[in-house]
Amino acid sequence: MNTQEMIQVSRGLVKAEFVLKNATIVNVLSGELEEADIAIHQGIIVGIGQYKGEVEHDLEKRYVAPGFIDGHVHIESSMSTPLEFAKMVLPKGTTTVIADPHEIANVCGKNGISFMLDSSERIPLNVYMMIPSCVPATKFENSGAVITANDIKSFKNHPRVLGLGEVMDYPSVIEGNANILEKIDTMKNRIIDGHAPDISGKDLNAYMQAGVMTDHECTLVESLTERVRRGMYVHLREGSATRNVKTLLKGVTKNNIHRLLFCTDDKHPEDVFIEGHINYNVNLAIAHGIEPIDAIRMATINAANCYGLNHLGAIAIHRSADLIVFEDMKKIEPIEVYKGGVLVAKNNHPLFEGDTVIPKTVKHTVHVDVSQIDLSLKIKSNPVHVIGLIKDNITTTKLIRHVKLEDNQFVYDEAIDVLKLAVIERHHMTKNIGLGLVEGFGIQNGAIAMTIAHDSHNLVCIGTDDQQMKMAIEKIVDLEGGIVIVNNHKIVEFLKLEIAGLMTSSPVKEVQETLKRMKKSVVQMGLSNDISDPFISLSFLALPVIPILKLTDQGLFDVEAFQMIPIEVKEGM
Amino acid sequence: MNTQEMIQVSRGLVKAEFVLKNATIVNVLSGELEEADIAIHQGIIVGIGQYKGEVEHDLEKRYVAPGFIDGHVHIESSMSTPLEFAKMVLPKGTTTVIADPHEIANVCGKNGISFMLDSSERIPLNVYMMIPSCVPATKFENSGAVITANDIKSFKNHPRVLGLGEVMDYPSVIEGNANILEKIDTMKNRIIDGHAPDISGKDLNAYMQAGVMTDHECTLVESLTERVRRGMYVHLREGSATRNVKTLLKGVTKNNIHRLLFCTDDKHPEDVFIEGHINYNVNLAIAHGIEPIDAIRMATINAANCYGLNHLGAIAIHRSADLIVFEDMKKIEPIEVYKGGVLVAKNNHPLFEGDTVIPKTVKHTVHVDVSQIDLSLKIKSNPVHVIGLIKDNITTTKLIRHVKLEDNQFVYDEAIDVLKLAVIERHHMTKNIGLGLVEGFGIQNGAIAMTIAHDSHNLVCIGTDDQQMKMAIEKIVDLEGGIVIVNNHKIVEFLKLEIAGLMTSSPVKEVQETLKRMKKSVVQMGLSNDISDPFISLSFLALPVIPILKLTDQGLFDVEAFQMIPIEVKEGM
Repeated sequence: MNTQEMIQVSRGLVKAEFVLKNATIVNVLSGELEEADIAIHQGIIVGIGQYKGEVEHDLEKRYVAPGFIDGHVHIESSMSTPLEFAKMVLPKGTTTVIADPHEIANVCGKNGISFMLDSSERIPLNVYMMIPSCVPATKFENSGAVITANDIKSFKNHPRVLGLGEVMDYPSVIEGNANILEKIDTMKNRIIDGHAPDISGKDLNAYMQAGVMTDHECTLVESLTERVRRGMYVHLREGSATRNVKTLLKGVTKNNIHRLLFCTDDKHPEDVFIEGHINYNVNLAIAHGIEPIDAIRMATINAANCYGLNHLGAIAIHRSADLIVFEDMKKIEPIEVYKGGVLVAKNNHPLFEGDTVIPKTVKHTVHVDVSQIDLSLKIKSNPVHVIGLIKDNITTTKLIRHVKLEDNQFVYDEAIDVLKLAVIERHHMTKNIGLGLVEGFGIQNGAIAMTIAHDSHNLVCIGTDDQQMKMAIEKIVDLEGGIVIVNNHKIVEFLKLEIAGLMTSSPVKEVQETLKRMKKSVVQMGLSNDISDPFISLSFLALPVIPILKLTDQGLFDVEAFQMIPIEVKEGM
Repeated sequence: MNTQEMIQVSRGLVKAEFVLKNATIVNVLSGELEEADIAIHQGIIVGIGQYKGEVEHDLEKRYVAPGFIDGHVHIESSMSTPLEFAKMVLPKGTTTVIADPHEIANVCGKNGISFMLDSSERIPLNVYMMIPSCVPATKFENSGAVITANDIKSFKNHPRVLGLGEVMDYPSVIEGNANILEKIDTMKNRIIDGHAPDISGKDLNAYMQAGVMTDHECTLVESLTERVRRGMYVHLREGSATRNVKTLLKGVTKNNIHRLLFCTDDKHPEDVFIEGHINYNVNLAIAHGIEPIDAIRMATINAANCYGLNHLGAIAIHRSADLIVFEDMKKIEPIEVYKGGVLVAKNNHPLFEGDTVIPKTVKHTVHVDVSQIDLSLKIKSNPVHVIGLIKDNITTTKLIRHVKLEDNQFVYDEAIDVLKLAVIERHHMTKNIGLGLVEGFGIQNGAIAMTIAHDSHNLVCIGTDDQQMKMAIEKIVDLEGGIVIVNNHKIVEFLKLEIAGLMTSSPVKEVQETLKRMKKSVVQMGLSNDISDPFISLSFLALPVIPILKLTDQGLFDVEAFQMIPIEVKEGM
């Protein structure tokens, strides 16, 4: 960048490469609408006022806002590469994301993080990274990798690494566990993202005193209010499974809004295509009474301030020309999206292509010997512990049920909706299999298997009988990762996720369409009306940090008791 | 700092070293008043809520706010060392300053900057530094040193260096001068402070495009508004000579206030002791209608945000316990000031001592051979150019006057108030002497000499006759810097400023009292009623960046014409 030339363009002595004429600028710094031209040169906003350009585009007073920033996202939840993710979110106006590659790190360790950094290097989306702090998430499951403090340190100087990813293991932090504190210390003076649902008072103070600066897990207005008071930035999250914006808006005031930002955390392609991305958070806020400019501030300058991105988040001199053009201040649907002054999306379509090189280090991640798998669930006596699903929630209940036994083995009984669940370690050929039972899923003749299973991403499979479950598992192994649906002893649908068993480089639009078809299949198989997304529900059944009863490759885990329990109630009581 | 112990204190399992009980916290993050205890351990705020301490101090619901931050100050203007400066400003509630050692750098170069860094190392005031960018300020004067881009770079990694000091030479920036751009480039990705009075539109854009992020020279509401819109943080300045707060407050809105902060720039001890320091800016803002919490935000969190000081500026967990206690939210006069949890001032008195080592590198800076000085001002013909002083202003007018000549030399005429002014190069024994005439100062029988003369800090002397002027100069040379008053052929007062001719390590209270006496003397000598501070007026007569007519060691400088001019009008016309 030739500074002297840039200055001459600012002065109007040299024409700018590109001028957006007659814009109505949403000025998030002064909180005003302003009519002016925006002069862009070498990707930077060099002038606001009256300018001439080599190329000019008359906006006819349409609104222009800074590109939106997703303050916390796991790109893996799109099941797509960063490139394909970008094709999906840029048309919605998101030009920057703060990504935490926690999922792929659980499968591929440092290689997974490197892949996410490398594959987001030359795409027209700013991808900043927070290095995962809690891999594995717990010791009650076997993940593909362990991320140590030294591993974290090795990424510290990457220009797009801003700090430490969500410190999920808040109990360890509060207990003063040396291992987690060492990890936090590696990112001293950088940003430390938090994850602290439901803690407050002295526990919250202790968690913050360890260095944690943000939280995106608020579900209560009181939590938001307390976190801002104590010094956190708070993300208002609207993802696929976790929808907190509407509730939290009640706690937003003109006085605390400067400490609030938006995120999606985990949002599936289907929801992004239908609802939108961060613009959906913004639109929800506006619909619920937040002034449009304030809602846009939360999606732009506030996030830039939180993460120290002084070159982003505002239409101001010397900042990157990441801009969205739209027509309605009350419902923001970008008609044009510019990244570094280049038009990258128009009328909801991406205008760029690209290739993602998939290195061997993130492929071939399903290590299971199918011939060795025994899914038979031996039960000494009734009653048994059953995982109970809850409507549109990733927490579960701990049920006690009588189930059908034959030769001391569980068999599916069409009369009651209790299915077998298996979590098969798939990283290191340990042959670990956890087996359990689930009520409330509803399918009646078939099985679903997938390699997305938070957070260790083992192979999870639910089904009515061992034969169909094994069929699904075999296909998953063939695919080297993905989602497979077996119905009436036939493979009816599958999605190949060749990258760590979590993502594919196939077009994101195809992923969305496949998922849509797959969901339809599962509904036809009898899916409970209470389950809006069968894959999300299934993927969280293995996560032992969320109450109450979960299944890992090590067995049945009682989150409240914080220990493994047997399936039989008697022995366990 | 033992993190585990700190966490235990946050949890209330271990008593805090110190607890401020029953505080009414001014929460600048949430914009509320909050009643709670503040638990402090190892200088850090580790708890807010109900806490017990090894030592407890009951505030009985008095207000507690974060310590104030001066966003831009030249400590040298206090004529005191950083330690003595701290003794003066901490009792007023200022716990952090962003200092620009521009003055001493003009005299001592890198050694001067190092001295300011070293002597502010172990004092109970946070002193952050911006490295001077414009030394010398212009080529039309001879300073003691030149600061190059490499010099700037050498300070970059000091932990208290935040960026580049005010880029005063804005015309060069706008012209794209390679030398100044190189200096800015050395502090890329750090803070670049600005200084851009009266520029706007495309010139302002160009100045910002070069990388400048702040401005403290606004005198007009329109300037403030435009700077915030374009992306600058703006300091509202209230110093001794420059009083902009009251005017600029008209431009402060709930929407742009987050980009505004306070500074003093240059404030003499007399004014600090009488009015206050940053608390005076705050009190002015409150008196003129800004909500008290918003005014306090400008003095705390906004400044912390601007300069990236995430550990300061708020009463929040994990931030430094820099706190002020006061009783009236409408007029803030701290009764207690804590720095890192330690009581450092009470009832307007500092509670700390200390020593400043003055290295040779900043002493013995007056290099003038008095025997060689010839003050005779040869004038070929009347009329002549005379510098006209303006009431309470550091700009001047360009007057045309007939003066009394004897043998083609100027002589003072009691009937007209025109005095001789000399600026004597004092750094390198160049024997340069600039001679000129001043109207409006008013003294009638004597001389004043001083080694504070912005920005090169040559020896400036004003007087009625050469004999008394020389007497003053001789004394200055004896003192190796300072201010000297000669009246009726006697030295009646003097202040020794042994550090660079700008500062002394004597107690700041003594400095104030001496200055007060000195001012009284000058008033008795006939000082014009329009001159509220004769020393400030005199010290700015040599600054060739401020209009209209100035005198440097190179001669008479017409700032509008941007060139040297002769004293005779004829030759110059």
